[in-house]
Amino acid sequence: MKQVSITLQKLNVFLLGFIVLGLAQLASAQSLDPLPSWNEGQSKQSIIEFVAKVTKEGSADFVPPAERIATFDNDGCLWSEQPMYFQLFFAIDRVKALAPQHPEWQHTEPFASLLKGDVKAALAGGDKAILEIIMATHAGMSTEEFEQVAKDWLASAKHPTTKKHYTEMVYQPMLEVLNYLRANDFKTYIVSGGGIEFMRPWAEAVYGIPPEQVVGSSIKTRFEMRDGEPVIVRLPELDFLNDKAGKPLGIHQHIGRRPIASFGNSDGDLQMHQWTTSGEGARFALYVHHTDAEREWAYDRDSHIGKLDKGLDAAQKGGWTVVDMKNDWKVIYPYQLK
Amino acid sequence: MKQVSITLQKLNVFLLGFIVLGLAQLASAQSLDPLPSWNEGQSKQSIIEFVAKVTKEGSADFVPPAERIATFDNDGCLWSEQPMYFQLFFAIDRVKALAPQHPEWQHTEPFASLLKGDVKAALAGGDKAILEIIMATHAGMSTEEFEQVAKDWLASAKHPTTKKHYTEMVYQPMLEVLNYLRANDFKTYIVSGGGIEFMRPWAEAVYGIPPEQVVGSSIKTRFEMRDGEPVIVRLPELDFLNDKAGKPLGIHQHIGRRPIASFGNSDGDLQMHQWTTSGEGARFALYVHHTDAEREWAYDRDSHIGKLDKGLDAAQKGGWTVVDMKNDWKVIYPYQLK
Repeated sequence: MKQVSITLQKLNVFLLGFIVLGLAQLASAQSLDPLPSWNEGQSKQSIIEFVAKVTKEGSADFVPPAERIATFDNDGCLWSEQPMYFQLFFAIDRVKALAPQHPEWQHTEPFASLLKGDVKAALAGGDKAILEIIMATHAGMSTEEFEQVAKDWLASAKHPTTKKHYTEMVYQPMLEVLNYLRANDFKTYIVSGGGIEFMRPWAEAVYGIPPEQVVGSSIKTRFEMRDGEPVIVRLPELDFLNDKAGKPLGIHQHIGRRPIASFGNSDGDLQMHQWTTSGEGARFALYVHHTDAEREWAYDRDSHIGKLDKGLDAAQKGGWTVVDMKNDWKVIYPYQLK
Repeated sequence: MKQVSITLQKLNVFLLGFIVLGLAQLASAQSLDPLPSWNEGQSKQSIIEFVAKVTKEGSADFVPPAERIATFDNDGCLWSEQPMYFQLFFAIDRVKALAPQHPEWQHTEPFASLLKGDVKAALAGGDKAILEIIMATHAGMSTEEFEQVAKDWLASAKHPTTKKHYTEMVYQPMLEVLNYLRANDFKTYIVSGGGIEFMRPWAEAVYGIPPEQVVGSSIKTRFEMRDGEPVIVRLPELDFLNDKAGKPLGIHQHIGRRPIASFGNSDGDLQMHQWTTSGEGARFALYVHHTDAEREWAYDRDSHIGKLDKGLDAAQKGGWTVVDMKNDWKVIYPYQLK
């Protein structure tokens, strides 16, 4: 810097300011491609056009920054969800870890099947079985203890087929959408059926989404003093299921504003999309359609997990963006980037 | 601008830049008094010292901006709460407005007494009566309808003794604290026993606190389609009471981080203060002590509303700041500013 200021004439310093300013403006106006992992096409174009529209001051579609709320489902929208929700892998590993303290689980379903390694039999009990597994593994400790357990698991556990950490199985193209929206003064939220406390410990590092912008399902809690120190204890009782018709309620409770853009991948996101797109002014809804059996998974109308049926019809009727994962995305996971 | 750039030499333009920069630095370093409505003294000093400490990079007490969470009770901490919580004035006015649609209220308590103008008799039923009044007046409509009703009321209703709008009865010294904290990269939240949907419509304009940073008590809601349009309907059933031991739970559910500073005025804020101050690192808790019978109200240990008893003892034990409203505050309300 010293050398520069000595060798340049004052006039040049003055001009240099304009050049730097000009370059910065050029960069922000033309910019590098904000969505480099997206192939050119309708999906990519629809995102860029929406952002351009709501951020253009003076235009009829302009939305003030404070109202630029964008909500994202997590499972199947920001990270994979096959062969089952990743949080279930966590719960099952916790059942195994806690089994020595629960000898009764050897003879009680769904735990007995799980401990024998028969996940399918364990989950045959449907939502009731899943709820039992969640309550047995997610409650009975303080919020800080649970956070540590979740963090430890995510740091060590690996996906059965990809052999990658679960937090590596996030979608690179969606990370780019999150960044692109935030660069345009959007506030990005997770709105997921998954557990709010399961997502918060890693959402900031992985997605750039801070804990206060994570909305999810929750169990009840209780405040109590332990040896003079306050703790929040997690109770084995469902508090709020943030799925389907629950999503607009979770959004309303946490955010208090209607999103102008929402992103999902299943019928569980349908009501969120309806709530988002029925507001006044420019609105945007997107479905990630899992069409890539080779690089990820292919499933929709008949899938047990991440079923996208009514949502596909609603998307067509409403003119929502439907991402064809196979053709729209150059790459799926960040670790595949060259 | 044109004249300036013509008359000034390029060298001067160059120097001017440094002068402007220097002035800005001077202003932000020395600064004008950030709390001009506070008299000099321990209370004011404690706030300024805490902020200086946690914002000084490299110091042991430094807290990164993302973790600078500050929570504020509303009733009696940011605005007045006498002779009763302002939300109750709203509810009572709503009972009167809705009475023609509810002929049965003429003969049912607590409504009958309210309609006769006998608030004291109506509230003799205690929390049960209050809950009945709240449910009868805060439910049975969509969230958007309720927001409009609350806004209309706040725009017209006036306090019985000051004859001011309720939103004018906010504490000027606390507005300064909110601004001062935000200027130092704190995120400011309301954490109140009041209704979350009652506060959100005006908290941004009055306190600079956006809807997503308001935590309060809530009633249950339901998502439904009305003529093809989605609405969120408010139900006459309590969902969450954000008071006392509920406050740390509301904080945890909405924010997911422990505050480093909290502000309250009653025993209802005790658990919030305990939760805040028991975290690691520098922590701050403050009680507004209502000591000014002349300019506001004087009440504490025996008060029916805003009782501050256990909290006063805890404050002394914990070294929390206790604001002596009468002596610490130069002015109470913004409209008293000269």
